[in-house]
Amino acid sequence: MIKTLTVTTRRQGLQDITTAVNRVVGEADVREGLCTLFLQHTSASLTVQENADPSARHDLEQWLNRLVPEHDPHYTHTFEGPDDMPSHIKAALTATSLGIPITEGRLALGTWQGIYVWEHRYSGDSRRLVIHISA
Amino acid sequence: MIKTLTVTTRRQGLQDITTAVNRVVGEADVREGLCTLFLQHTSASLTVQENADPSARHDLEQWLNRLVPEHDPHYTHTFEGPDDMPSHIKAALTATSLGIPITEGRLALGTWQGIYVWEHRYSGDSRRLVIHISA
Amino acid sequence: MIKTLTVTTRRQGLQDITTAVNRVVGEADVREGLCTLFLQHTSASLTVQENADPSARHDLEQWLNRLVPEHDPHYTHTFEGPDDMPSHIKAALTATSLGIPITEGRLALGTWQGIYVWEHRYSGDSRRLVIHISA
Repeated sequence: MIKTLTVTTRRQGLQDITTAVNRVVGEADVREGLCTLFLQHTSASLTVQENADPSARHDLEQWLNRLVPEHDPHYTHTFEGPDDMPSHIKAALTATSLGIPITEGRLALGTWQGIYVWEHRYSGDSRRLVIHISA
Repeated sequence: MIKTLTVTTRRQGLQDITTAVNRVVGEADVREGLCTLFLQHTSASLTVQENADPSARHDLEQWLNRLVPEHDPHYTHTFEGPDDMPSHIKAALTATSLGIPITEGRLALGTWQGIYVWEHRYSGDSRRLVIHISA
Repeated sequence: MIKTLTVTTRRQGLQDITTAVNRVVGEADVREGLCTLFLQHTSASLTVQENADPSARHDLEQWLNRLVPEHDPHYTHTFEGPDDMPSHIKAALTATSLGIPITEGRLALGTWQGIYVWEHRYSGDSRRLVIHISA
């Protein structure tokens, strides 16, 4: 089963999609299987992160912003704005696809794990997430 | 087939799980298929690395420790100890899931590849690895 | 279905393999399914990146070269040349495996996405990519 989910991001940062993906897994009615997520973009990405304390996600976002600065004089790909080239780099350093087993009809996530779309552009966008589920 | 493996890490660093995962693949009795690994944690991760010379793994660990320092004054998520926030960042930069084809009843790894759980906390922990195998 | 593709890289950098992988997907004759790519090397890796403007890939490569410098005095794994240890680090920061859904008999990539083997050694090499396709 394949389903495409549209995730509307409104700003740069991590957006929790765990509940939305688990809903798709529930609809697939698979007790044990594999859920593969694939994000169809190169200026946003996927990550599995701490779902409890928002300060961990805040620090992670800020750390990556410091690692991949804007207005780096080495950049030549600049015509789409100062947040575009850093977005491609951040996407390359994180994940475009994730494979998550399904047990008891749900994603087999750890207690403290959430799944996030990581928007790297300032303004957010409509992001398409392709979800493949197999038994 | 889904099996959960508990990997006991005793200290920060890469721990080889290749033999343990190949044992699960062998028990599944699948000649050709796909093995998906998913680690249920956000302060440890997965990586495929050089299995021959330990100096490559040592340099990799030390490099990442320099990239993601402890006691960064920007961190606000500090109450779980100085190694906690760096652990989340390191996990985001490496892999939480891996998909590895199975050929001739074994993981189709390259000659110099091993699979590792990368423990990012000092003291190690009990880490749960969910293994999904399909034909 | 599993097929191994040999990708000959001739120099350091991103090499587009989208067409070659889509050809294998076409031969598998699967309308809907999952394509998993696994690279059998630890000094090259996989990435999904912008396929339109080569300047984005150029900036990405140069940025990673600055992040992971050669001749770092901390390296101890140096006997395979100055580009070897940086290669292992770069591979750890990017992807060794990718899961991409198949829709309408083709990889469900976004409009601006291409799949690349990222060669981290100067001289390039023969790189083996294992492709698993399931319905």
